[in-house]
Amino acid sequence: MNPTASTDELPSSTAPLAGVRVVEVSSFVAAPLCGMTLAQLGAEVIRVDPIGGAADYKRWPLTEDNESIYWAGLNKGKRSFAADFRNPEAQGLIRNLVLDAGILVTNAAGREWLDYDELAAIRPDLIHVQVLGRADGTGAVDYTVNAAAGFPQVTGPENLSDPVNHVLPAWDVSCGLYAALSVVSAVYRREITGAGTRVVLPLEDVAFATVGNLGYIAEAQLGGPGRRRIGNAVYGTYGCDFTTADGIRFMIVALTPRHFRDLTELTGTTHAVTALEAALDVDFRDEGSRFEHRHVLDSLFGAWFGKRTAADVEEALAATSILHERYRTFAELARDPRVTDNPMFQKLDQPRIGEYLAPSTPMSFDGVHPTVRPAPANGDDTAAVLSEHLGLTGDEIDALAAAGAVRTKQKDPA
Amino acid sequence: MNPTASTDELPSSTAPLAGVRVVEVSSFVAAPLCGMTLAQLGAEVIRVDPIGGAADYKRWPLTEDNESIYWAGLNKGKRSFAADFRNPEAQGLIRNLVLDAGILVTNAAGREWLDYDELAAIRPDLIHVQVLGRADGTGAVDYTVNAAAGFPQVTGPENLSDPVNHVLPAWDVSCGLYAALSVVSAVYRREITGAGTRVVLPLEDVAFATVGNLGYIAEAQLGGPGRRRIGNAVYGTYGCDFTTADGIRFMIVALTPRHFRDLTELTGTTHAVTALEAALDVDFRDEGSRFEHRHVLDSLFGAWFGKRTAADVEEALAATSILHERYRTFAELARDPRVTDNPMFQKLDQPRIGEYLAPSTPMSFDGVHPTVRPAPANGDDTAAVLSEHLGLTGDEIDALAAAGAVRTKQKDPA
Repeated sequence: MNPTASTDELPSSTAPLAGVRVVEVSSFVAAPLCGMTLAQLGAEVIRVDPIGGAADYKRWPLTEDNESIYWAGLNKGKRSFAADFRNPEAQGLIRNLVLDAGILVTNAAGREWLDYDELAAIRPDLIHVQVLGRADGTGAVDYTVNAAAGFPQVTGPENLSDPVNHVLPAWDVSCGLYAALSVVSAVYRREITGAGTRVVLPLEDVAFATVGNLGYIAEAQLGGPGRRRIGNAVYGTYGCDFTTADGIRFMIVALTPRHFRDLTELTGTTHAVTALEAALDVDFRDEGSRFEHRHVLDSLFGAWFGKRTAADVEEALAATSILHERYRTFAELARDPRVTDNPMFQKLDQPRIGEYLAPSTPMSFDGVHPTVRPAPANGDDTAAVLSEHLGLTGDEIDALAAAGAVRTKQKDPA
Repeated sequence: MNPTASTDELPSSTAPLAGVRVVEVSSFVAAPLCGMTLAQLGAEVIRVDPIGGAADYKRWPLTEDNESIYWAGLNKGKRSFAADFRNPEAQGLIRNLVLDAGILVTNAAGREWLDYDELAAIRPDLIHVQVLGRADGTGAVDYTVNAAAGFPQVTGPENLSDPVNHVLPAWDVSCGLYAALSVVSAVYRREITGAGTRVVLPLEDVAFATVGNLGYIAEAQLGGPGRRRIGNAVYGTYGCDFTTADGIRFMIVALTPRHFRDLTELTGTTHAVTALEAALDVDFRDEGSRFEHRHVLDSLFGAWFGKRTAADVEEALAATSILHERYRTFAELARDPRVTDNPMFQKLDQPRIGEYLAPSTPMSFDGVHPTVRPAPANGDDTAAVLSEHLGLTGDEIDALAAAGAVRTKQKDPA
């Protein structure tokens, strides 16, 4: 046994969170994304899981060997500690890891041995971040929260009456980032004042706060007319998707008067649009007017797109200020130079799964994206963590593993 | 003139970012959300705008008096500094504000007087966060980035072939949170090491990193089958929306075997589902099997929902572990007790707009949500900021205002 085997992979001391250690007891998207983001920023993140993995360890998509591509994506650069959560000795070890690290991030519910009060009684400067479904402790996930948040009723084609769920788990992603922000803010406060922090972060409140920040709740409470479906248009300004002669779709946005002027010039509709402004007594430099009269503008511009191939459209748009993008599938994106030539994406040889381009953080620090590191397998770092952080000997660790309290790294078959 | 008039509203010294000052030169969603979030965490955030406001100052939705509900929502708790961006003296004042604060967040492009190199030459520990559309400097917004990211091709009803844009600007929101996380991480690093940080954060890379983190790029590069539209189902597990006898829609998710068992018991389909498992030779405790056979399960469960009113369905679901939510419009959410009785929402008397419930941060710190503070009007704090931070006298400030270099607070008509 070599308990320090994985320390070679720990981030360098220049990373923003170098020296910060986090214990994560988590599953699914939000809390794991929080921990992974902290790991990317240089923290040592120890994901603690039941032996065999939490409920997300085999989540789709899977490889042919039943390994989760999903799990690997959200747990890059962490260490894995596996223990029997019902074993009191294992619970004590996990508590000690939390107390030693000083930071816990969890979305686990009903784990009394991780309760804030008991832990903070021992270590008052503890940072304890509890992610919940709802503030009242009841369960909720991205897809149910989204149903309550109002967006499915305004997403999708204009003539549709059914709700349309988003596929991107946007609330989970936002919740994970709010959780990471909470941790780093509390770490900074602790550095300045010495104080710990208890953070509670309900997924539902992430959604409702965002709905409020974007003005939807104020609009309703101030007696606004209510939002309707507007298809792929952009509320309050000009946006539309167009189809080319060869059947490719482009999203076009004209946010500023300059964008809009370029769009009328490109499509040869400047005279028609000027005549329309006079006839309607409006000024399309005002984005609200562009939005209100979008359907007639869509028709005017659509003819130009419908007569040209995607290649011609793309070349012509590139010479203008118009905001534009060709719709792509995930498969097309995966082979796009903006992925394959992007320094944010780094070739990762992910054990058990294979080699692919995995993303670092979207932000670079002093021109550098943090190095991408693979996700561990369940229990890969149990022995190293017990040795490094709790000072256990090899014999003690072997005894814990033999008793089933913890699971250590699986040996390769000889 | 009372240059300290607004300091009463500054956050208390126990807030995580107390003592941190940020200059924000921004517009639209991502960068303003970053600054607002930092303000909620206790930083003093000075939003610097052109006189009359940036391109987002009149963005929809508007009140009858043409005030932007949208702008108020994303700029709560900031101070407003207004100046003529083409005036070299004003540029110098803004640069000095940045150098004095030590932190700049901006999504402005082409403002050479805000370039990192020149500012860092004077203040090497500067934290400079540049939000971009794309990494190459070309323009992109949430709606165009989304088209490239792949989600519109898999969002919406199963039988649809057109792309469906999201309405929630999920990439902007995530970008704003990544930006805030970058700032706080860099502030912490500066506290520990003394070093400044240059952060570059392209909106497009936020989307592409998220697509990668969620496994879509790896799946494609590993030769996976590609994703198709699955309507309101949840990929890889069981989720479906059902309609009640009175026409109300519910989103149902059965993520765990327990959720699923409760769902079959509630709907009286346990025998039928067991028979189905035997006939298909599958085990629905495996979430992948629930997903693969979702259509027949949808039909079995749907009958139960279709025979009951929403009130009965809601009551019955509440007694189970099943994850569920009634679809709501924004207007319904705005009057829901989970908003009106939620301590995260605080009554805000927003000058120029009116009184409504505005959200604080979704996370509470030691049981408390930060106090919600109103958004300023353009130039409200110009004089106070010049006095407090640059030490200008009242006469000097009046001269700058008279020359049109800055705009100070608009006096109420006498």
